[in-house]
Amino acid sequence: MCMAKVYLEGEDEEELVLEEVATLRVDGDRLLLETIFGEQKSLAARIERIDFLNSRIVLSQPFG
Amino acid sequence: MCMAKVYLEGEDEEELVLEEVATLRVDGDRLLLETIFGEQKSLAARIERIDFLNSRIVLSQPFG
Repeated sequence: MCMAKVYLEGEDEEELVLEEVATLRVDGDRLLLETIFGEQKSLAARIERIDFLNSRIVLSQPFG
Repeated sequence: MCMAKVYLEGEDEEELVLEEVATLRVDGDRLLLETIFGEQKSLAARIERIDFLNSRIVLSQPFG
């Protein structure tokens, strides 16, 4: 099992949004994340890149 | 290490596009996939959903 860490790209650094992410769904311009614990998070963001070797997802937001 | 299998959503089934995927990058309306062996693939597709527990990514294409 390979749960992912989700980061949001900022100006200078990447901010950790959610850990132990089991699933990600794209719903229009939103992303729905769910952890193995059932915690859900919905974000207006896009996927920029995914590094599967390090189980790392980087998102960006259209503003801010 | 958790390499991913990438599938393309079809009408009836999901078609395997690439295995042992190490990285995915979003470049406009294209996705750039790279395997642990350095094989690269560029697709006009979008991410629909990712199942990290099963290391499974499902894409869709705007046409076909």
